[in-house]
Amino acid sequence: MSRMMAEIQEQPEALRRTFERERAHAADFKKFAAARDFRLIVLVARGTSDNAALFGRYLLEIATGIPVSLCAPSVHTLYHARLDLRRALVIGISQSGAGTDINLVLKNARRQGAFTVAITNEAKSQMTRVADETFLVRAGRQRSVAATKTFTGQLMILYLMAFALGREIELKSVSEIPARVRETLKLAAEIRGMVQRYRYMRQCAVVARGLHYASAFELSLKLMETCYIVAERFSSADFLHGPIAMIERDFPVILFAPPGKTFAGQRQLIKRLAGLRAETIAITSADVRLPGITRTIRVAGKIPEIYSAIPYIVPGQLFAAQLAEVKGLDPDRPRSLQIVTQTL
Amino acid sequence: MSRMMAEIQEQPEALRRTFERERAHAADFKKFAAARDFRLIVLVARGTSDNAALFGRYLLEIATGIPVSLCAPSVHTLYHARLDLRRALVIGISQSGAGTDINLVLKNARRQGAFTVAITNEAKSQMTRVADETFLVRAGRQRSVAATKTFTGQLMILYLMAFALGREIELKSVSEIPARVRETLKLAAEIRGMVQRYRYMRQCAVVARGLHYASAFELSLKLMETCYIVAERFSSADFLHGPIAMIERDFPVILFAPPGKTFAGQRQLIKRLAGLRAETIAITSADVRLPGITRTIRVAGKIPEIYSAIPYIVPGQLFAAQLAEVKGLDPDRPRSLQIVTQTL
Repeated sequence: MSRMMAEIQEQPEALRRTFERERAHAADFKKFAAARDFRLIVLVARGTSDNAALFGRYLLEIATGIPVSLCAPSVHTLYHARLDLRRALVIGISQSGAGTDINLVLKNARRQGAFTVAITNEAKSQMTRVADETFLVRAGRQRSVAATKTFTGQLMILYLMAFALGREIELKSVSEIPARVRETLKLAAEIRGMVQRYRYMRQCAVVARGLHYASAFELSLKLMETCYIVAERFSSADFLHGPIAMIERDFPVILFAPPGKTFAGQRQLIKRLAGLRAETIAITSADVRLPGITRTIRVAGKIPEIYSAIPYIVPGQLFAAQLAEVKGLDPDRPRSLQIVTQTL
Repeated sequence: MSRMMAEIQEQPEALRRTFERERAHAADFKKFAAARDFRLIVLVARGTSDNAALFGRYLLEIATGIPVSLCAPSVHTLYHARLDLRRALVIGISQSGAGTDINLVLKNARRQGAFTVAITNEAKSQMTRVADETFLVRAGRQRSVAATKTFTGQLMILYLMAFALGREIELKSVSEIPARVRETLKLAAEIRGMVQRYRYMRQCAVVARGLHYASAFELSLKLMETCYIVAERFSSADFLHGPIAMIERDFPVILFAPPGKTFAGQRQLIKRLAGLRAETIAITSADVRLPGITRTIRVAGKIPEIYSAIPYIVPGQLFAAQLAEVKGLDPDRPRSLQIVTQTL
């Protein structure tokens, strides 16, 4: 078994551990945040962690009502802008905690008046020394280059942050996520059979919206890293503003279609894609037929949309890891990559 | 000549008109903004206009020091979040001014305490009635489905907004942009010859950073819409965090490489791509050799980086419009698209 597959399997335990060890911390932070009355949240990250940030961008605005900005690191590291960050909460997300640019942004943000939080897997990383406060992802050391358990661990911490900063998220529901992931992992065998069909897939698009927009980014990144597939990623709304023109007969489109606010739109899009004779693959827990769909990956259970991001990415991880093997590639050693990437 | 090519050629005049007719308005707005003391700017858009917003995201933070957030429309239209937008300036960008979701976000934002501005090409559109104030792009009616002159017109207004909200942007330098675009249009014949080489290109990546990150998005969108090329777009920094794994011998990568803060990084990336034997195409006004580059599109003149976004997208527009023709496609009638796309 590849390290990537092993780390995918470790997720229920890693998520449970992260939740249990950080929940009291989150409750403390809730009191602190109420006193500080933050008016802006800025999320800073790169790579897979930036996909976690993209999820946080939606979750935190929806669950807390505080506007969120995804930081453009170069504004700080290259253009040396001085931003007014009074009453801002700046959250850095990095698996290794060693990303030079992310740490530089956190340092600048503190100088510019922000309160800073680190979300990282490494307790002794530089990031934990730079930030005012650290929330630790307890995923255990990441050995695969393609991040999986650290990504879902970051999402888990973002749920705790949303709990701390607002009133929408309930800890009880968050505590149920690890069990849902365990359930979803049972799809591994079915997906292993399914990926044969995509042995020669060279390009595809991954499409989602809202709370799952980040899932599209994360699945497409995994497909690029481990399968060398040219995987586009789009919001379904933006997709209709141009990119749909490139879709032709047989073009594969993977769609996240959780029941909830985005479902009707995704369903309509699948119909339209069927009209173009595209190949469509839906990841969904909805208990209805999707007219025109080519393949369905059925996530078990009734999962409220707002808590679905973690269980839904798991079939995507299984798909990428197993497709890489079917393509004769080693998902643990993507060409041209290392675990820690330095940029400035 | 396609409508798209005709509209590309209209840009110097459209930009001059937009600048001349809105400059006094921008000066007035500068006084108003000083009194309001905005603490947050939110940009709301879709499609090509969203690429203009992405440029605004960098320009406005760099030139004004006010944090910027790119709005996720679904947070408002699907999830009905109530955001705290006191002291926020919310800027909607839409060619047609008819995008239902963008207008809905502007309405909500007003209710939540924001001051709202519309940037649109259509003086009588709904957007102008919804927003507190309108800055008009004077590009003339857009007839091509692929937006070009309205995109650069939106960028022109964003320069005026940056002037109004900060101290970095000088109107004199902005006034020189139309002449630079006229100069850049002379590249049309050279690019017409060059695109023959890409007759059978089916996929590519477009890579840029900082103030040109949005240029990568816009060029790749044009390639998707008019040439049906699967065109990925990346920040060069994020590119190294994963996607570079998919690059192999012959894979085409188009890079924006303006002299300035991002140049050293782009140059290094070109070298690395040459090592992977990828095909690289640079759009640059730098007067130095780029080791390992396959093709160079040379933008004339010494253009300060912060004023380079408009002239630099022009060769990209010429590339897409002429490649579409060489591929036997009609850039004015992309399959599956209309000028106005409605989403909610």
